[in-house]
Amino acid sequence: MDMKDNIPIITLLTDFGETDGYTGSMKGVIHTLLPQARVIDISHHISPFHILSGAYVLKTYYSFFPPGTVHVVVVDPGVGGSRKNVVVEAMGYYFLTPDNGVLSYVIGENRKYRAREIKNREYMAEEVSATFHGRDIFAPAAAHLASGVKLQNFGPPAKRLLVFNEAFPTIFPRKVSGKIVHTDHFGNLITNITREHLVGFDRRSIVVGTSGRTVIGLSETYSRRGRGEIVVYFGSSGHLEIGAVEASASFLLKAGVRDDVTVWKRGKET
Amino acid sequence: MDMKDNIPIITLLTDFGETDGYTGSMKGVIHTLLPQARVIDISHHISPFHILSGAYVLKTYYSFFPPGTVHVVVVDPGVGGSRKNVVVEAMGYYFLTPDNGVLSYVIGENRKYRAREIKNREYMAEEVSATFHGRDIFAPAAAHLASGVKLQNFGPPAKRLLVFNEAFPTIFPRKVSGKIVHTDHFGNLITNITREHLVGFDRRSIVVGTSGRTVIGLSETYSRRGRGEIVVYFGSSGHLEIGAVEASASFLLKAGVRDDVTVWKRGKET
Amino acid sequence: MDMKDNIPIITLLTDFGETDGYTGSMKGVIHTLLPQARVIDISHHISPFHILSGAYVLKTYYSFFPPGTVHVVVVDPGVGGSRKNVVVEAMGYYFLTPDNGVLSYVIGENRKYRAREIKNREYMAEEVSATFHGRDIFAPAAAHLASGVKLQNFGPPAKRLLVFNEAFPTIFPRKVSGKIVHTDHFGNLITNITREHLVGFDRRSIVVGTSGRTVIGLSETYSRRGRGEIVVYFGSSGHLEIGAVEASASFLLKAGVRDDVTVWKRGKET
Repeated sequence: MDMKDNIPIITLLTDFGETDGYTGSMKGVIHTLLPQARVIDISHHISPFHILSGAYVLKTYYSFFPPGTVHVVVVDPGVGGSRKNVVVEAMGYYFLTPDNGVLSYVIGENRKYRAREIKNREYMAEEVSATFHGRDIFAPAAAHLASGVKLQNFGPPAKRLLVFNEAFPTIFPRKVSGKIVHTDHFGNLITNITREHLVGFDRRSIVVGTSGRTVIGLSETYSRRGRGEIVVYFGSSGHLEIGAVEASASFLLKAGVRDDVTVWKRGKET
Repeated sequence: MDMKDNIPIITLLTDFGETDGYTGSMKGVIHTLLPQARVIDISHHISPFHILSGAYVLKTYYSFFPPGTVHVVVVDPGVGGSRKNVVVEAMGYYFLTPDNGVLSYVIGENRKYRAREIKNREYMAEEVSATFHGRDIFAPAAAHLASGVKLQNFGPPAKRLLVFNEAFPTIFPRKVSGKIVHTDHFGNLITNITREHLVGFDRRSIVVGTSGRTVIGLSETYSRRGRGEIVVYFGSSGHLEIGAVEASASFLLKAGVRDDVTVWKRGKET
Repeated sequence: MDMKDNIPIITLLTDFGETDGYTGSMKGVIHTLLPQARVIDISHHISPFHILSGAYVLKTYYSFFPPGTVHVVVVDPGVGGSRKNVVVEAMGYYFLTPDNGVLSYVIGENRKYRAREIKNREYMAEEVSATFHGRDIFAPAAAHLASGVKLQNFGPPAKRLLVFNEAFPTIFPRKVSGKIVHTDHFGNLITNITREHLVGFDRRSIVVGTSGRTVIGLSETYSRRGRGEIVVYFGSSGHLEIGAVEASASFLLKAGVRDDVTVWKRGKET
């Protein structure tokens, strides 16, 4: 038996914060069902009003885990509402989440995936609360999935999962119209524009415009400029980022999630 | 040998925050004594001035872990003072904590428990600091307990553990007088009133009063109302909660821990 | 084979915060390379502008872990700049970090250590981003080191690692001139002055001066005074601390990292 087989990994990305026992009870449920599971906290500080941001964060880490890892993502202002709870297999990984757009980068851009609704009560808590599906539905489902339960056992096929249009930019001949999808801990503004969207553009002549501010040219990194200077570069996820040297671009530019960012070729008017 | 036997679980609930190495050194001590232990962070953001809140949070997760789990709870503004450090067995779980009321829900309401003071220096750090019992007393005690050391080896019986009266409401014929015991990450106000306290009350006619605000009727969940609307429901822990749709009830009502909440039958005057 | 050999421990201390997937992708990289590793979060809230503070925090926990533990410390405002990435063996532990002074307490005061630059691309991600060495250099290096790769395989010897002068006080015949090196979660002000620096001083006659405030005498702990009272004591790390009873000394004294603290014998003028 291979060592890797012994350590099923379950990651947690939520909007639950860390002041309560919410994530604690999820961990308890998982370890009760699957003692050998390795439960890994990613973040519990995703804004419930920015699921788009959660979608981006998920993109940055999921594929760095061993194939087969179970990623639980519960950013869910609508708990108790009508959205479906789903289990999805894509890119060699599993995802458990309300169907709320958070998988936009995992399944968007025509990627293949298999998805089922989580309906089978056999894999839920005996009593399911109206307000805490993380503990009563997703945690047990994650443990059962990591234990080897097949996707099709969880429920009927889930069709047409939600994908945010805003997760991807619009490409024009001389410009790319995008949006900020995440503001990180350092105040860097991360856009939905990636290297692939800018193929054929000249690195030195790209102009990035946010409301009231234009930056000319791309930097390799942000350490070779003066403090507070705004720089644009491809971040570690391959997305175009707007940062500030040893400062918060979000604060300096008063910009945040869903704000517009346009990249166009120099010479082109706004 | 059963797989579960191999993975002793130790959970940590503290007021230590996460900017320092405090929890880190506790984890180091535990893994040095018991390498195979699984140490699980619950929260390190319990307010040291709201031990009542810590008692509630503990209630929400402890019983979701496998029986035998060792729960370490160090919310301790009085470190170095005269309160006892205790090890308690109750409901099939172990608890290590200063005797400060944080076990109110675990041992309150006439539940059976066994408790010992932690006095045996054999199970402490060689040198015990005056200010960091988490590292020097509770972490090593947790590791030894999870290793199989018996309760009675830690010290003499601990008598009359502190239980907060405020952890439970007062029941009158036509009303229940309770208090807010926790404000969660979402701003939900959680009371000390549970389903059991309201047996015989008519769900539709319950009126909840906090200072200056009355809400009529119980909701199943908070997703079917307009944003900002105040709703009252039984939360995932079975406690009556006051929430606001996609907003913070704590902020909107300017209410928090220890504020009064009364539930009475409709028609009854305040 | 000894059980301890089976569980290599890797700890993480960063300035990455917890709102993003940054630490998540590091954990993914580590578990992919070394599934049985135990990755332990210490803190992700070290201020990037206070590496001195990170150096202190590192001191408080590293030696409580089992010998051989790999400590990853990435507090790195200068990522992409010219500082070296190093792997260091000292005091029986391993440290992976940019050479930015964060090891001041580990290697300072003439301690022995071995250090190598991390240059061997065999132990890095296939593609190394300009901005996220934590994921692309330090995480894989940590996994390889914990897997048994020898120090000398990572790269050439690293000479003259940075040590902050501010990490240590200046000793005069009748006074010790120090600095605050860390403000903890409780607002305690932790200085660079330890018991060893005050050998020969009379505990009862020590006077501590910060700007505008003098405290006379050392306390054993801070629980026996009135709320808000300023007290000075040796904290759990052996460093002299300035605290306030059930309050924040940092707030009350308006003091923080790099502020001066002088200890002198009573009778001596300022």
